[in-house]
Amino acid sequence: MTVSTQIRVRYAETDQMGVVYYANYLVWFELGRVEFLRALGFDYSRMETEEQCILPVVEASCRYRAPARYDDQIRIEAFPLLLRGSVLKFGYRILRESGDASTLLAEGETVHVVCDPSMQRRTLPESVTEKIRSAVAEHAATNK
Amino acid sequence: MTVSTQIRVRYAETDQMGVVYYANYLVWFELGRVEFLRALGFDYSRMETEEQCILPVVEASCRYRAPARYDDQIRIEAFPLLLRGSVLKFGYRILRESGDASTLLAEGETVHVVCDPSMQRRTLPESVTEKIRSAVAEHAATNK
Amino acid sequence: MTVSTQIRVRYAETDQMGVVYYANYLVWFELGRVEFLRALGFDYSRMETEEQCILPVVEASCRYRAPARYDDQIRIEAFPLLLRGSVLKFGYRILRESGDASTLLAEGETVHVVCDPSMQRRTLPESVTEKIRSAVAEHAATNK
Amino acid sequence: MTVSTQIRVRYAETDQMGVVYYANYLVWFELGRVEFLRALGFDYSRMETEEQCILPVVEASCRYRAPARYDDQIRIEAFPLLLRGSVLKFGYRILRESGDASTLLAEGETVHVVCDPSMQRRTLPESVTEKIRSAVAEHAATNK
Repeated sequence: MTVSTQIRVRYAETDQMGVVYYANYLVWFELGRVEFLRALGFDYSRMETEEQCILPVVEASCRYRAPARYDDQIRIEAFPLLLRGSVLKFGYRILRESGDASTLLAEGETVHVVCDPSMQRRTLPESVTEKIRSAVAEHAATNK
Repeated sequence: MTVSTQIRVRYAETDQMGVVYYANYLVWFELGRVEFLRALGFDYSRMETEEQCILPVVEASCRYRAPARYDDQIRIEAFPLLLRGSVLKFGYRILRESGDASTLLAEGETVHVVCDPSMQRRTLPESVTEKIRSAVAEHAATNK
Repeated sequence: MTVSTQIRVRYAETDQMGVVYYANYLVWFELGRVEFLRALGFDYSRMETEEQCILPVVEASCRYRAPARYDDQIRIEAFPLLLRGSVLKFGYRILRESGDASTLLAEGETVHVVCDPSMQRRTLPESVTEKIRSAVAEHAATNK
Repeated sequence: MTVSTQIRVRYAETDQMGVVYYANYLVWFELGRVEFLRALGFDYSRMETEEQCILPVVEASCRYRAPARYDDQIRIEAFPLLLRGSVLKFGYRILRESGDASTLLAEGETVHVVCDPSMQRRTLPESVTEKIRSAVAEHAATNK
């Protein structure tokens, strides 16, 4: 299961090279991650407040293929790659949409450790765990 | 009393026009404001946690005179303009330093309402109040 | 004529007070401004490259009424307030949408000087001028 | 050769979890990279304009060890790991300074391809190349 989110590049996201500043892709990854969880039925803002469950990032990486430019229509694809105990890994693809064509701009991953608000490791609520496990299996099967 | 803070323009702060994106001046105002409080002996991070005192912004304005560019050496001047009850107003000047010359790039103000963490109005701790009052009076006297 | 743009608050836009950092409202103003121009038929990215016409900000102000929070559904309203020679002024309203209710979170204005890429004053292309003039008149009439 | 840069965490860099938002570490990496080049005698803003030499990022990664918090005194260490043809790789360490103690908060790398302004691969100016080669050798020798 892959969830797509559409955004437009903001002027504030560009730099003087005329392209999107490289750190902003990690902001986009987060947007994709949140929409992925929402598509599973989980509201990250409620997970933080009601389930006492936060997802701090312990690792992030990005490979930049082609630059995104101001006002580009961007598609963010997010999908879970692994869930083992408290460790949750997401993958991302950033694409430029232009008419029917889409161009891969960047790919990346983030690794999270599921924590309670005092930053102690915990596991995800059972209902989330099951759905993410299925999504991981599905992603692995379709990308063999 | 005016407190000066020195920074260098970051690449991330520029936009594709080749100048600093306009919202970033408000970030710089905040840096100046924090250093002003520190110069008075108050650590804003401790004011939040120990004094239960936060300074949400209710108004901000900026006049842009000349663009700041990547790697420019910037001086942020911050000074208090008014303290009346829970209302605190700061003024700012943003200057580019280049050898002996300095060029005014922007000027602005922010208005704050002193609040406790539940966002109820309160007054500043007495010790802060006195020092800010003197600084307001001094600024008014030197800028008549 | 008022143009509305919908966004969701990003995690990156919050600060440790648990609300949207105050400078980000100026980023949102810009999103509204760009969508306003697009609704008139003008693509700001093309105005920069094809029409040699940029809109640097010379003044910006914002009054903050209520805080925006993570994941809030935000509506940005943008409308032109004045066009006189090279000077163009926009107004903005930022609202939180929640079911049928909408809450005013912030209001503001930006003033721009129409410039060519070498930062010399110029006027807007004639076609843009006419449409903005009508929008200014319409806004003034409906907000008397 | 490792170059250290000191900054203080800005309020704008925190998020509602009360720690620095993860994308901002890539901004800090860039500050370290620029100061490293400056220490070698190269001004990145001049490299772009006078030497027609830009350093777009093709890969970035970060491992987060401990959170940075508002107002923390941060030391950014930057050092070159590799220079082969047009490919330049930097390493970074982000530390919190507190009195005599320093705590490792994050580590990372960025990979760059040296380009001219039309994004064609080129090599660094000869003078830069030599100095970076020495720095790479020295770093490798001291970190065996």
